[in-house]
Amino acid sequence: MNSYDMDTPITISDRDKPARQDKHLTIGALIFPRMDQIDFTGPFEVLSRIPNSTIHVIAKTNSPVRDIQGLVLTPDMSIAETPEVDVLLVPGGHGQQQLMNDEEVLSLIRNHFAAGRLVFSVCTGALLCGAAGILRGRQATTHWSTWSLLPYYGAIPIRSRVVVDGNLVTAAGVTAGLDAALVVASLLREDAIAQQIQLSIQYAPNPVFHSGMPDTAPAEVLQAFNQSYSAIAVSREAEARRFAAILGVAV
Amino acid sequence: MNSYDMDTPITISDRDKPARQDKHLTIGALIFPRMDQIDFTGPFEVLSRIPNSTIHVIAKTNSPVRDIQGLVLTPDMSIAETPEVDVLLVPGGHGQQQLMNDEEVLSLIRNHFAAGRLVFSVCTGALLCGAAGILRGRQATTHWSTWSLLPYYGAIPIRSRVVVDGNLVTAAGVTAGLDAALVVASLLREDAIAQQIQLSIQYAPNPVFHSGMPDTAPAEVLQAFNQSYSAIAVSREAEARRFAAILGVAV
Repeated sequence: MNSYDMDTPITISDRDKPARQDKHLTIGALIFPRMDQIDFTGPFEVLSRIPNSTIHVIAKTNSPVRDIQGLVLTPDMSIAETPEVDVLLVPGGHGQQQLMNDEEVLSLIRNHFAAGRLVFSVCTGALLCGAAGILRGRQATTHWSTWSLLPYYGAIPIRSRVVVDGNLVTAAGVTAGLDAALVVASLLREDAIAQQIQLSIQYAPNPVFHSGMPDTAPAEVLQAFNQSYSAIAVSREAEARRFAAILGVAV
Repeated sequence: MNSYDMDTPITISDRDKPARQDKHLTIGALIFPRMDQIDFTGPFEVLSRIPNSTIHVIAKTNSPVRDIQGLVLTPDMSIAETPEVDVLLVPGGHGQQQLMNDEEVLSLIRNHFAAGRLVFSVCTGALLCGAAGILRGRQATTHWSTWSLLPYYGAIPIRSRVVVDGNLVTAAGVTAGLDAALVVASLLREDAIAQQIQLSIQYAPNPVFHSGMPDTAPAEVLQAFNQSYSAIAVSREAEARRFAAILGVAV
């Protein structure tokens, strides 16, 4: 049992969760060009601090990639070189669109998940999971702007910041990866481990504005976001419809 | 005027803040070995999204560095190559201790600040600011474990997550850099810019535990942290006492 507070926005399904374990834990974190770096660096901050664990940063090749804002991220190894890991972190961001037909990435996610191991997506990393076919029948979340696309991948969209459905943990947009990583740490080890990490990174967040969600942001702020977002929204919806046809999902 | 909510843990002194400006904004973000990566990647996520701005990642040399957990961070340029910037981000983490006598780093901070430009420290980056001599008479914050050392550097310690004192913005520990970066974005541009960034990164944080501060963490979690932290605590206190003597500060 976890001692999560009942007022926190987390949904946990009835499906069996990954068992807690004391053995050495290996985590693989996927990075790719034009991703959103904090989808990865947020969870890295938490997961890399789990005692008796190793985190590998993995990419399609050994070369550094740049995130959508230009930050250079450097992998430790290529996908081909990556050993079997216990947890696979799948971040999102604009660049996720360029991987929706990348069979190397999709089969990495698919095979890892099929073996019953934990997949942890952040933001539109959930769409990569959808393209890999692992969202069918699963409760899931993603960035608020993309929630409506989850059914195209056969998922049950849940308006929670963190959703745990068996060996699938999905986080809402971008910074939700921090909240979800604490959940993953507590699921795989114990609450006290997650709590000590939270204390060390002084994670008692308190933003000066309440503009993190569309229903709390000022109307003109939401409008400005929607305008800037419209091109990729169209592209993501087209991709979702294409996948719904391939997966035989009626939406 | 900023429309910050009154219940948010931010302290703003009476000293003149940097003026809002529409001109192109340049930001320099310092990285160094054994830093805490999210002290940098958190603010990067926000600051890099300010319209009409450029963010430079800077280090002592052009070579990549690894954060305390092994993440590779790559600079765009060396300190020597860095142009004058409007904002200087000074992150913290264990590796800050190795720079407390690094005159190249300290004079970068000192000269930037003396010219009236904005210094933004996160976590124990405040101690680097202290070593540079810029905290004297200033209200400031830092990681909760290090607050008690601020007076040795002549600072007025404030138990806020974000403190703005003129051209000095200090954030509390690690993840407080995200909260403070939204403040910096709103100070330098307008609230709506910060709010749109917050919406895009879905920054509506809600951790499952309330363990981010020593007074809310379970007692055994705090005790475990203090044990793991004792070595660097001793080292940081010795450094602070040494600086108090140099700066002529009576504590």
